[in-house]
Amino acid sequence: MSASDAPKPVVILRASPHPVSRIFTADALRALQERYTVVDLEAAADPTEALERALPEAFAVIGQPDLPRERLARAPKLRALLNIEGNFYPNVDYQACYEQGVHVLGCGPAYAQAVAEHALGLALDLARGISREDRAFREGRERYVAEANADAVLLRGAEVGFLGFGNLGRALRTLLTGFAPTIRVYDPWLPPSTLREHGVLPTGLAETVAKSTFLFVLATVTEESEHLLNADLLATAPQGARLVLVSRAPVVDYDALLDGVAAGRFLAGIDVWPEEPLAADHRVRRLEGTVLSAHRAGGIPAAFLSIGDMVLDDLDLIARGLPPVRMQVAARELVGRYRNRPVTG
Amino acid sequence: MSASDAPKPVVILRASPHPVSRIFTADALRALQERYTVVDLEAAADPTEALERALPEAFAVIGQPDLPRERLARAPKLRALLNIEGNFYPNVDYQACYEQGVHVLGCGPAYAQAVAEHALGLALDLARGISREDRAFREGRERYVAEANADAVLLRGAEVGFLGFGNLGRALRTLLTGFAPTIRVYDPWLPPSTLREHGVLPTGLAETVAKSTFLFVLATVTEESEHLLNADLLATAPQGARLVLVSRAPVVDYDALLDGVAAGRFLAGIDVWPEEPLAADHRVRRLEGTVLSAHRAGGIPAAFLSIGDMVLDDLDLIARGLPPVRMQVAARELVGRYRNRPVTG
Amino acid sequence: MSASDAPKPVVILRASPHPVSRIFTADALRALQERYTVVDLEAAADPTEALERALPEAFAVIGQPDLPRERLARAPKLRALLNIEGNFYPNVDYQACYEQGVHVLGCGPAYAQAVAEHALGLALDLARGISREDRAFREGRERYVAEANADAVLLRGAEVGFLGFGNLGRALRTLLTGFAPTIRVYDPWLPPSTLREHGVLPTGLAETVAKSTFLFVLATVTEESEHLLNADLLATAPQGARLVLVSRAPVVDYDALLDGVAAGRFLAGIDVWPEEPLAADHRVRRLEGTVLSAHRAGGIPAAFLSIGDMVLDDLDLIARGLPPVRMQVAARELVGRYRNRPVTG
Amino acid sequence: MSASDAPKPVVILRASPHPVSRIFTADALRALQERYTVVDLEAAADPTEALERALPEAFAVIGQPDLPRERLARAPKLRALLNIEGNFYPNVDYQACYEQGVHVLGCGPAYAQAVAEHALGLALDLARGISREDRAFREGRERYVAEANADAVLLRGAEVGFLGFGNLGRALRTLLTGFAPTIRVYDPWLPPSTLREHGVLPTGLAETVAKSTFLFVLATVTEESEHLLNADLLATAPQGARLVLVSRAPVVDYDALLDGVAAGRFLAGIDVWPEEPLAADHRVRRLEGTVLSAHRAGGIPAAFLSIGDMVLDDLDLIARGLPPVRMQVAARELVGRYRNRPVTG
Repeated sequence: MSASDAPKPVVILRASPHPVSRIFTADALRALQERYTVVDLEAAADPTEALERALPEAFAVIGQPDLPRERLARAPKLRALLNIEGNFYPNVDYQACYEQGVHVLGCGPAYAQAVAEHALGLALDLARGISREDRAFREGRERYVAEANADAVLLRGAEVGFLGFGNLGRALRTLLTGFAPTIRVYDPWLPPSTLREHGVLPTGLAETVAKSTFLFVLATVTEESEHLLNADLLATAPQGARLVLVSRAPVVDYDALLDGVAAGRFLAGIDVWPEEPLAADHRVRRLEGTVLSAHRAGGIPAAFLSIGDMVLDDLDLIARGLPPVRMQVAARELVGRYRNRPVTG
Repeated sequence: MSASDAPKPVVILRASPHPVSRIFTADALRALQERYTVVDLEAAADPTEALERALPEAFAVIGQPDLPRERLARAPKLRALLNIEGNFYPNVDYQACYEQGVHVLGCGPAYAQAVAEHALGLALDLARGISREDRAFREGRERYVAEANADAVLLRGAEVGFLGFGNLGRALRTLLTGFAPTIRVYDPWLPPSTLREHGVLPTGLAETVAKSTFLFVLATVTEESEHLLNADLLATAPQGARLVLVSRAPVVDYDALLDGVAAGRFLAGIDVWPEEPLAADHRVRRLEGTVLSAHRAGGIPAAFLSIGDMVLDDLDLIARGLPPVRMQVAARELVGRYRNRPVTG
Repeated sequence: MSASDAPKPVVILRASPHPVSRIFTADALRALQERYTVVDLEAAADPTEALERALPEAFAVIGQPDLPRERLARAPKLRALLNIEGNFYPNVDYQACYEQGVHVLGCGPAYAQAVAEHALGLALDLARGISREDRAFREGRERYVAEANADAVLLRGAEVGFLGFGNLGRALRTLLTGFAPTIRVYDPWLPPSTLREHGVLPTGLAETVAKSTFLFVLATVTEESEHLLNADLLATAPQGARLVLVSRAPVVDYDALLDGVAAGRFLAGIDVWPEEPLAADHRVRRLEGTVLSAHRAGGIPAAFLSIGDMVLDDLDLIARGLPPVRMQVAARELVGRYRNRPVTG
Repeated sequence: MSASDAPKPVVILRASPHPVSRIFTADALRALQERYTVVDLEAAADPTEALERALPEAFAVIGQPDLPRERLARAPKLRALLNIEGNFYPNVDYQACYEQGVHVLGCGPAYAQAVAEHALGLALDLARGISREDRAFREGRERYVAEANADAVLLRGAEVGFLGFGNLGRALRTLLTGFAPTIRVYDPWLPPSTLREHGVLPTGLAETVAKSTFLFVLATVTEESEHLLNADLLATAPQGARLVLVSRAPVVDYDALLDGVAAGRFLAGIDVWPEEPLAADHRVRRLEGTVLSAHRAGGIPAAFLSIGDMVLDDLDLIARGLPPVRMQVAARELVGRYRNRPVTG
């Protein structure tokens, strides 16, 4: 390792849309500053000038300042671009990063656990009517013991379906271990053997929807996945199915979804919306058979702060000549295909 | 096995407080009637007379008709008393049952899975504010992404405490597998080695309360456990702890509990109440920091119907000269100590 | 609890066939003597006289001195008979014990973990030729890398069969968790639902044998199970199957088993034998395709010492008016049906 | 997907050191040939000429023909280099691959499960003396029940140590799930948080060795790991520890290891050797306290055939414009650091 008087590697930081303190604990920020020369663009009088000045010695970039090819070319020592926001915007020339041997890293894993727990919470709420009966209780309409339980079901041993099996699906599968469910997964980006190794059944889209009494929509949005769960498919869901939406809204046809809930065909827990904020008079606000959540599944303090820890861990590995292991290596093939919207508030 | 023309064993049935169809599926009831001569006391013109007439040949009793010692003495072939209600009332002379070699069986395991899932649902709701934010959403007050998440926490890796480790605690521990928590358990009826074999830490009451950021009250009521979780103990719970009450109400000092919630000391998910129904103007109905549930955790269709299946399975084993394995053998030492109230509606 | 000057409960101890130090650590023995007045029959000049003298005050008996009905009648305070040897011999009147409310407890669980680990060790040896190739290596005949691996197979994801699902089957199922096998179980003493709750498939005997590439014989001997695995059934085992015998020898037709191994039909790991010691010239000693073990699966130090710990834990619970939880309650129906031979050396 | 009359992508195949049929099932080979134009260099009259001719259209290379930078430059459509042997030899210019956007993929995961099962088999053998007592039995020296069990130990709940936590360590950790061990891991290439996420304890080298009664050496050889487990460290292993060596031999000081076994300090299961084949008169062949295995842990039929399946799956993903997921992406930082010897026979 470098001697103590060796210059510290230069790290360019642009935390936006986060305040720095959201993603770094005080300890993590101190460690970052001790080990690296941190150039905080948002603290600079002239961010562009600060960026340009730092490039020639830059070891890593945290965040996504504009990095076209020609700017990257001025950063010959650059080893990593650490995305802390969740979306890969086109203001960076990723192709140039790959050619230069710059690791392009994403922070998706930071949110997966939080979203998985929220998704399970929504599913158990739908299974047992928790928020519905909490509301009734507050209004003095509570019904004791078995009276409000006619549609209550167990998750243990249930037929569960996942649309998508990335970080989030894996985290949710782990959480479901103790429920011993049958899990069918539709994920066209993964071969069946990979799914089987994770203990889930690789299944076509139609079968996954038709057989799952708990269906979790966990898919990333790409062109192909838009309205993946359309009206025709929704019509095949089992009567009384519980649908949980915690990934990207465009994956689902909301009109068809809400029509199905209104008709008593199924119940839905919804965390993502086609427009946010949702219109004040949107019909879902008066719709029984739903649990409503305002894109809250991922953005909790523990998830944000884990980003800083992941950044620190991976910077240290890279500085030691080792590959990063905590953030997600953004696949060259996929970095331009995601069409997410920002996750932050 | 007995030849087909052998008389079928006589089974006395008193399903109350359940209707028969709540605990037996149509298939199960048919199987029961095919294999046994069923004397349904509640269908009899004179239940007492029907009971007395059936006793001399009775092989088993499902339910709890009055069975004092002298009546049991008139049932020399009796092999099992299958309690389908959850409480062991003193209208049966259990001591006489044991002396006569009659299995005394309880249906507690039927409810454990349902209660455990409900308890986990309440815990995740408290962790993430699911019902609170659903209410806000319905009122047009929802806050997107991170804005309502300041107090949101993960369950994964959390410090979890259980007060009590019977059927319910075991079911909940299994459900928590994928969360990899540290689980401290206070259960004075179990030796530490038994708890360690289940992968939980045997811990004193004070430490369990003081260290658990998720605390589940799962204890049965006995004289010793009344107000087990009293004001002094509650005062030691970690700031922001999530408390989940799904066993018997007398275990907790409700005034102290609600005071603590009102003071912002902790949050509580409550399924059992000191009086049911609760007073219409009870302060808890207006209390933030709670999820309110009307004794609904156990009494779901799947739980009730599993009772009938357990009854059938165990009757068949006993008729084959084998010990029962599905219902819970009521320990001679404990059958008189429980002070539960009815679980049914 | 009792005041410190109350007389200590009297516990009669007859450790045979074990020396006391095999089943009690020094600490456990000290605890036993501190909490109870221990009457060690084997240390007594006249064991029968010592037994008779202790009976009127006896709280528990550890071991199996002769206890006919009339002797039990002279022990009105007796609460438990703790069997520390593994077999329930007819020198005790178990029926009288049940009538008197005496817990009859067995130590089977003490051995289950040791036997399960040994069984898995035998299975992995058969899967990979570990002892066979160790012998070859010592003789300078070793073959490197893939050359001796033609018949090597994985256990992960394999079709596994259990004959019997008592303590041992449950311990083995737990050990196999990480192998994600399909486990078929034949156990006529358990209803299918119980097996499914443990995550195994209830299956008939024929199907279990015919489909399992790893077959574990874990059944207890009863009249019905003698030669359960006979020549006809063995003929249906899959080519190349691995058979592991760690329960009682009479369950299997050894001639047929060894003929099958000799013919290259399957491989066998054998820990129990129809006669022990086995004849010096027995053909199995020269038979390839076997791993030979001299009834060593259960009797390891950790297993023996756990007996003492279980005894202590359960005595303490019973003394506190609670039911025992660590030793196995011997079912009234089964206590006379086992036909085991001693497990000790 | 491409129309049926589109030319099939060209795949260059050089299976050596494997015969093609070792790594491809008949079905897999058929699928490979149906989907791709396969240029099998080893079937060509002039392999070099065949390679050169195929390069301009080559989509992927399976195996490791000489690929210096100038040759890679003649393969502009090349997307993947799929290593099927386990070592990354310097006859390929990996740096040029990365610059050209060619996936460099390794087959390490194919062997991990096989090695992990073998390692566990060795550990259980050492724990219980399985091969030692099998030898004794064949020589008529077997000792029944407890007599040969004085040093037998349980793996359940044991203190386990891993040196290294790559594919192999992860596979072994999964296999150990049912044993509920404490697992300490020394792996300087991984941050503590990654190890904790896998449920193991990140620990320094000294502590891992000193506290582990079962120690698994799973480390890859690099300059830094040569004689990682040296005489001084071995001297700190617990008395009676079981050491299992299944990774690369240079990681351990064999003289010190065998001296320790000879002195009765610990037991060792050894699958890899400093020279293979080992000298005919090597002392280890007469050494009790060992289980000897001739580099057999990984090279089993199921492992080899999984390579072909992984190759097929990843080729298909890459052809669809998706990233590979089954083979291991060779980190740019590490591809030149491994110093393995061939794994094949």
